[in-house]
Amino acid sequence: MNLEQFSSYARNRVDQHLEHTLSPYSHADGLHAAMRYSLFNGGKRVRPMLVYATASLFGDANPLTDACAAAIEAIHAYSLVHDDLPAMDDDDLRRGKPTCHIQFDEATAILAGDALQTFAFELISAEGLGDATLQLRLVKELAQASGRFGMVTGQMIDLSNVGLDMLVADLETMHRHKTGALIRASVRMGALSVGMTNEDTLTKLDQYAAAIGLAFQVQDDILDIISDTATLGKTQFADEHANKPTYPKLLGLEGAKTLAQSLTDQAISSIETFGEPAQPLVELANYIIGRNH
Amino acid sequence: MNLEQFSSYARNRVDQHLEHTLSPYSHADGLHAAMRYSLFNGGKRVRPMLVYATASLFGDANPLTDACAAAIEAIHAYSLVHDDLPAMDDDDLRRGKPTCHIQFDEATAILAGDALQTFAFELISAEGLGDATLQLRLVKELAQASGRFGMVTGQMIDLSNVGLDMLVADLETMHRHKTGALIRASVRMGALSVGMTNEDTLTKLDQYAAAIGLAFQVQDDILDIISDTATLGKTQFADEHANKPTYPKLLGLEGAKTLAQSLTDQAISSIETFGEPAQPLVELANYIIGRNH
Repeated sequence: MNLEQFSSYARNRVDQHLEHTLSPYSHADGLHAAMRYSLFNGGKRVRPMLVYATASLFGDANPLTDACAAAIEAIHAYSLVHDDLPAMDDDDLRRGKPTCHIQFDEATAILAGDALQTFAFELISAEGLGDATLQLRLVKELAQASGRFGMVTGQMIDLSNVGLDMLVADLETMHRHKTGALIRASVRMGALSVGMTNEDTLTKLDQYAAAIGLAFQVQDDILDIISDTATLGKTQFADEHANKPTYPKLLGLEGAKTLAQSLTDQAISSIETFGEPAQPLVELANYIIGRNH
Repeated sequence: MNLEQFSSYARNRVDQHLEHTLSPYSHADGLHAAMRYSLFNGGKRVRPMLVYATASLFGDANPLTDACAAAIEAIHAYSLVHDDLPAMDDDDLRRGKPTCHIQFDEATAILAGDALQTFAFELISAEGLGDATLQLRLVKELAQASGRFGMVTGQMIDLSNVGLDMLVADLETMHRHKTGALIRASVRMGALSVGMTNEDTLTKLDQYAAAIGLAFQVQDDILDIISDTATLGKTQFADEHANKPTYPKLLGLEGAKTLAQSLTDQAISSIETFGEPAQPLVELANYIIGRNH
């Protein structure tokens, strides 16, 4: 499978699992509409791709793998809905469409985000997924990655530093939490879902994830400058207008490009040991640098 | 133990568990300050009391019982922080103190609420709490009660009906989700935490919880009218000003009082079968009606 084929394989699997599990509930029609709007909005499903690609290193993806991919995507979707709120990044546009609070209203967006977070834990703890010990470990991994030790703290660091000077090391700390923690969870949970619990192996995957997570962010900052609004599907110069610290500001555009390339190389070398089966992870790392949206 | 003694027993246990588990994290000082502000704000700890009182029917409270009490209180705290936001109920005062978004700011309040939700799942899935199968079931119970099948849907129904006429049955549906689901989870998780998984027993506890959950809500509506701001610790006539449907509006003040008493009687009769050990649950049911704040 080339990357395009792998991408549609992962998208189909995770979308099917999300469709199937986000069952209707008569008292929650409005809430579900906002949850669905935020889940099925043309996102690239990079995190599910990471889950499936990592699982495939050690075994066949199973229903627990699907649950992990879907749960991580639900957490990602909730974080975007809340980050876009007026009190946060105040974004009207996401992937070329109105953000959740614009399409619905602010209260609905807050609640849809809240319910998407709970939905993620519902997915992992569902019945018929096999081993309770493994499921419980996955609940723990997801909670660690998305809460006060991970994603939420990253967003808090981000908001606290708008308009302030920030050192490269601090910018890295922010991104390691804000997006890095969930990317790390994607590869770890993918491996765990097929029973790979070896700590050395998980550490190699952590190194890969840390490098591509940061590369993704550096590239995002670069694209904010060199791409245009139509291609990005979000407002160009959004970071600049929000007066946020970025890699091109701190390192210059060329410095940022060099960093992104070097991080990609690091990522690929971390997983060399897995050989040919790691090809999707290698292509994903390269895609992050090459992507134009 | 009388109710006052039981209340301080439950408060001490849950507060100690929350103190112990909400460990410092150097990158999240600001977030933790807002989380702590919202968790330790003089709340009555009614839900933890329910957890411990129910557990005591079947065995000695254990660390998993503490985790359940703490997790339910974390979910309750997150829901209050988000419900108080300007886009939701827009409340400045909670238990006599500035609400989280007034004390900090709106973005911090959104993130503290998000992190408190994740913290709840972190608590239940922590290591050293015994049986993975039981812990996983508790994760599932908590997700069911707090997300799209429970609390969040209740808040959504609430917001969708401001200024509208509402039938008594619809008001009950709203409360069954908004507060009832978490009260039901409190008694179920208390029982499960000490290994009581018998479905007939859980059904009796469900009946108790449904009745006191609704009684609590009816009484809350009554207090909004007959109490004053200083006693309530929140703005009096808040429901009236928000033009929200309430039991006194639909049934008259006397009708609402009769309903509250009848629900309390139902609650007590549901747990008669447990005899003397159910005394704390009986006293809790009576307390709900007698309380003046």
